[in-house]
Amino acid sequence: MSFGESHGVAVGGVIDGCPAGVELSVEHIQCELDRRRPGQSDVSTSRKEEDEVELLSGVFEGKTTGMPIGFLVRNRNQNGKDYEHLKDLYRPSHADYTWEKKYGIRDYRGGGRSSAREHIARVVAGAVAKQVIAGMGITVRAYTSQVGSVVMPGSYREVDLERTEDNAVRCPDAETAEKMIALIREVREQGDSVGGVVSCVIEGVPAGLGEPVFDRFQARLAHAMMSINATKGFEYGSGFAAATMRGSEHNDSFTIKSGKVTTTTNYSGGIQGGVTNGEDIYFRVAFKPVPTMMKPQATVNRQGEEVILEAHGRHDPCVLPRVVPVVEAMAAMMVLDMLLEARCGRLE
Amino acid sequence: MSFGESHGVAVGGVIDGCPAGVELSVEHIQCELDRRRPGQSDVSTSRKEEDEVELLSGVFEGKTTGMPIGFLVRNRNQNGKDYEHLKDLYRPSHADYTWEKKYGIRDYRGGGRSSAREHIARVVAGAVAKQVIAGMGITVRAYTSQVGSVVMPGSYREVDLERTEDNAVRCPDAETAEKMIALIREVREQGDSVGGVVSCVIEGVPAGLGEPVFDRFQARLAHAMMSINATKGFEYGSGFAAATMRGSEHNDSFTIKSGKVTTTTNYSGGIQGGVTNGEDIYFRVAFKPVPTMMKPQATVNRQGEEVILEAHGRHDPCVLPRVVPVVEAMAAMMVLDMLLEARCGRLE
Amino acid sequence: MSFGESHGVAVGGVIDGCPAGVELSVEHIQCELDRRRPGQSDVSTSRKEEDEVELLSGVFEGKTTGMPIGFLVRNRNQNGKDYEHLKDLYRPSHADYTWEKKYGIRDYRGGGRSSAREHIARVVAGAVAKQVIAGMGITVRAYTSQVGSVVMPGSYREVDLERTEDNAVRCPDAETAEKMIALIREVREQGDSVGGVVSCVIEGVPAGLGEPVFDRFQARLAHAMMSINATKGFEYGSGFAAATMRGSEHNDSFTIKSGKVTTTTNYSGGIQGGVTNGEDIYFRVAFKPVPTMMKPQATVNRQGEEVILEAHGRHDPCVLPRVVPVVEAMAAMMVLDMLLEARCGRLE
Amino acid sequence: MSFGESHGVAVGGVIDGCPAGVELSVEHIQCELDRRRPGQSDVSTSRKEEDEVELLSGVFEGKTTGMPIGFLVRNRNQNGKDYEHLKDLYRPSHADYTWEKKYGIRDYRGGGRSSAREHIARVVAGAVAKQVIAGMGITVRAYTSQVGSVVMPGSYREVDLERTEDNAVRCPDAETAEKMIALIREVREQGDSVGGVVSCVIEGVPAGLGEPVFDRFQARLAHAMMSINATKGFEYGSGFAAATMRGSEHNDSFTIKSGKVTTTTNYSGGIQGGVTNGEDIYFRVAFKPVPTMMKPQATVNRQGEEVILEAHGRHDPCVLPRVVPVVEAMAAMMVLDMLLEARCGRLE
Repeated sequence: MSFGESHGVAVGGVIDGCPAGVELSVEHIQCELDRRRPGQSDVSTSRKEEDEVELLSGVFEGKTTGMPIGFLVRNRNQNGKDYEHLKDLYRPSHADYTWEKKYGIRDYRGGGRSSAREHIARVVAGAVAKQVIAGMGITVRAYTSQVGSVVMPGSYREVDLERTEDNAVRCPDAETAEKMIALIREVREQGDSVGGVVSCVIEGVPAGLGEPVFDRFQARLAHAMMSINATKGFEYGSGFAAATMRGSEHNDSFTIKSGKVTTTTNYSGGIQGGVTNGEDIYFRVAFKPVPTMMKPQATVNRQGEEVILEAHGRHDPCVLPRVVPVVEAMAAMMVLDMLLEARCGRLE
Repeated sequence: MSFGESHGVAVGGVIDGCPAGVELSVEHIQCELDRRRPGQSDVSTSRKEEDEVELLSGVFEGKTTGMPIGFLVRNRNQNGKDYEHLKDLYRPSHADYTWEKKYGIRDYRGGGRSSAREHIARVVAGAVAKQVIAGMGITVRAYTSQVGSVVMPGSYREVDLERTEDNAVRCPDAETAEKMIALIREVREQGDSVGGVVSCVIEGVPAGLGEPVFDRFQARLAHAMMSINATKGFEYGSGFAAATMRGSEHNDSFTIKSGKVTTTTNYSGGIQGGVTNGEDIYFRVAFKPVPTMMKPQATVNRQGEEVILEAHGRHDPCVLPRVVPVVEAMAAMMVLDMLLEARCGRLE
Repeated sequence: MSFGESHGVAVGGVIDGCPAGVELSVEHIQCELDRRRPGQSDVSTSRKEEDEVELLSGVFEGKTTGMPIGFLVRNRNQNGKDYEHLKDLYRPSHADYTWEKKYGIRDYRGGGRSSAREHIARVVAGAVAKQVIAGMGITVRAYTSQVGSVVMPGSYREVDLERTEDNAVRCPDAETAEKMIALIREVREQGDSVGGVVSCVIEGVPAGLGEPVFDRFQARLAHAMMSINATKGFEYGSGFAAATMRGSEHNDSFTIKSGKVTTTTNYSGGIQGGVTNGEDIYFRVAFKPVPTMMKPQATVNRQGEEVILEAHGRHDPCVLPRVVPVVEAMAAMMVLDMLLEARCGRLE
Repeated sequence: MSFGESHGVAVGGVIDGCPAGVELSVEHIQCELDRRRPGQSDVSTSRKEEDEVELLSGVFEGKTTGMPIGFLVRNRNQNGKDYEHLKDLYRPSHADYTWEKKYGIRDYRGGGRSSAREHIARVVAGAVAKQVIAGMGITVRAYTSQVGSVVMPGSYREVDLERTEDNAVRCPDAETAEKMIALIREVREQGDSVGGVVSCVIEGVPAGLGEPVFDRFQARLAHAMMSINATKGFEYGSGFAAATMRGSEHNDSFTIKSGKVTTTTNYSGGIQGGVTNGEDIYFRVAFKPVPTMMKPQATVNRQGEEVILEAHGRHDPCVLPRVVPVVEAMAAMMVLDMLLEARCGRLE
């Protein structure tokens, strides 16, 4: 459960159901938050936001107590006046029009709750989930695998995921990263924006997670990913490429390796029949180009008049680098949820 | 809520929360069920299943009463003996291994509940949802847009969706349909199987559906689709193609048409900020090749031995034609859910 | 999840989340159903209903598989014509008026879904839950402790709960039972009805069940009990009598007995801070006199006219004896739910 | 959703699903909070807590936006050292033992989250709900109707509920209030505590709220009430007294009054068949004597030793006066929830 608007008092949330007795590092949470922070490099927005997390409950003497963990990140920059000119406008491909239709009222300051600042709450809660699952040997690692038409060649197995944080775009392949950075700079100079793809791999998940039939692991994972701002598509394992494959090629044969059941290939992406099989879970999430641009755009206002939206402010020309920790956060929470839910299915 | 296994007594379910006072045609439900039925043509399995629905409650004098609608489709062909040889085997890329790991027990007859026969309950409930939303001018129409590498050219706007039922593969483009049928026949002769893509368009959805932020319309839609057997990916609107686009190209400009706010393009796929904007909602779902094949496959058994799984029985070489009504059913239910949930957000 | 109306096709339900691997006796389920059946004795209705349960899924070779367990009890006596005269009438203190206001439509045959026949689904599901928790040493035993002003003296500790089934009113104290039976006969002869109280004790529940703070054990138990037809009140442990007690009298002192923490008294009714402490859980549920009587009553009809409702049919003058298994069923399901939910709170 | 412990950083919560466009008075919220505040009079604890609410989101230009409303009340008095002596002790009839059994860890400072300080979040959220339903003509008014054996004579109809705030015990009958105050003073002098009953009436609720069959209005109300600290019982309408009544006496005859369907009596307490009928809803909640006393008590510690708990600090000898706004808050939230859920059941 999260709350908070871009230019309100604060963004925060409540983590309910976190298991008791887990040692929690606030430094690690802050560190994850810094990965999402604007102004990290010249490929993201130059707005400065110092997001500092405060834990309000649920932790005692450094350990979780099983009680809800409330947390808060105050908004430093709440000057809503900068947004007066958007009060009556519907920005194209933003939430302005639809949310006003839905609620009859809209906090227009910086997009209100539809702003990506809401992701802060996800990153904090995800950092808690990461610490819990790390104790069980589970890691979640995402990276930028595509920006515009610059695509990282090969799969996650051919790169060193420890290199992801080495560059501003969070692509573990240095050569591709440079091309991505060049593209983003070019796009920014044009006052435009560009989309991309985040890839993610979850390692160490035990077999048996996922709830047949409506809460298959991949259904919950898709739900989690498609709830992130600006996402357009989700695929796991072989993904859309499976459409062109034959069964004889796509089936993952079982074999025995060091006395353990494993598969020779992993087109299943670690999920069979909606339940994890112990292999790596990997998936891709498509992001659209951010709709905010430094170019004038045709649109309409609340009065039903066609008007021109002039460009203002400072914005990310590409969300990809800063959304990598958000994808990890949502995946970590989702894995922990499924771990806990799976415990409900058995009595011993 | 659904229940039932492939070779158990019956498959059925309970539809909870269906609005009261809606006239319900049992013939329409049966008709939808017949679209999913095996043995419709030579491109699907030749197994005969006569699935007949019985409504058990929630309908009085032809109208829904607001009470839960229980329903049942009895399984005619329950000969579990045909499956004795699979008792200890884990079929590749099936649910056998993972479900046994999860539950410690497994109904091995025809895949038990992991069988696509479970889709019956979805089609019945979806047929009810379709009738409810039809009264509000909403239609849901899916079709096969890709089988293996045979792809239907153009979008849904360039074909007549009323032609979808004209051929065995449920592709509204006759020429493409023929190629798909030829490919499926070829694959079947090889004892193999092939994947594909189902496309779907929802028309007539009012603006304002979808619940920020975790239950965005597309998040719920992705959840619904990825809960269907054999799905590997989901995308809506511009989808993965958005990754290569620029914001200036991708943004859907607002304009006024006959006094109504509309967009000049629809890369958003009818959803902005997680909420519908009144334009068409369209999306694509990727399906893997069915893992059951008429070829021997390497696998392991419960005893941890590597063994060969011999081919048996009769199976669909391609699920696409029969899964089209399932995609429609899940979409219809999801739209109705969101319609009802949206009513909770306002008091008047 | 349950479905079904009094005079529809069937009453049934789906048990979701039942743990896998539990041996299930259909005979035991049928036996519980027979305890609720009308026509068991002259103190209940003389209508004959032979309720036979059919399990439809979720059980394989006598064991639960972790899959939803669908079940069905067909209605034998569906003659809706007997109820034509109630079509436009609102029977006093029944659901007729309120449900019609809510849904705009109403299945008037025997009260439709508001009929106590809906309890059938609860008893079946409760019988499954009872079998699951029995394997963990947990028993749920209810009895009639009050009918009208006939009150069983003493607490559950002073009687032998194995004697409950010895008489028609299900009161373990033979002497009180006789008085209750006499009272019910007297009330029936007057064409009237009478209320009462069911008491229940749950033994063997481990410490640690109940979810702070909104899903305290007693909150969920109260919810379960107050969802039964005709209930008017719930209290546990000291209950309403606690209002007149002093803390020095009411506090349950902890002590050590055979090396185990226990309490010297149990005014807490086995629940402290919303969580079970391992002592007996006991509670009482008040039932109103059934509103259906063999006397004419003043009421109004749909047309807004004041009319007289004439008495018809055969009815229980007192629901208490037949509602005892329903109280047990709801308690058993609720305990199993809390057992499974408690597993979510810890990782090991 | 609420969070926060007695001696942690803050108590707060998130109100999700509050309808958009409602004018919200922060003053009113603070006012309700002050009614729950300790140190209001000499019949409650002399501890001083200045609880000040801060709204963090979901309100824009004085109106709700439909977005989650986060809020916070900082704890001023966080001196956990005062509680070091309770670290290893299990206080009788408190949550100490059960929560430690459940979670393996426990924030022992002032009872942690099991403290009645958690009620702060309920009062804030309830104050928001009250403002929303006030706009629909619905009022929720609770009062102390019993303290120990001092019982207010008559029903809510015979007193002026506007007088409730006139005295320290919140009893609208001045004479009874005096007796209650005298009793509480006497009990405090003895270092003891005493229980009581809060009565509540909800007026203006339209017919049609409550969801058959498991979420009957009274089931949800009972759940809400039994989730409040120290509650032991719940009854509505005729309550436990119904057990001794005859149907002919208990049935509420329908009649027409000024062209509207109404009932001549209201033993149903405004609820029939689990759904509201438009009449007043009234109910009673029993509270136990608070377990914290100024007398030494026998108990055990974590090491399994029998020890004596010495009395410390300042405590309420009777929770009743301060729990009145909590009962109102939970009732207001529950009514608003049911109002919104009822909207889901119909399409127009």
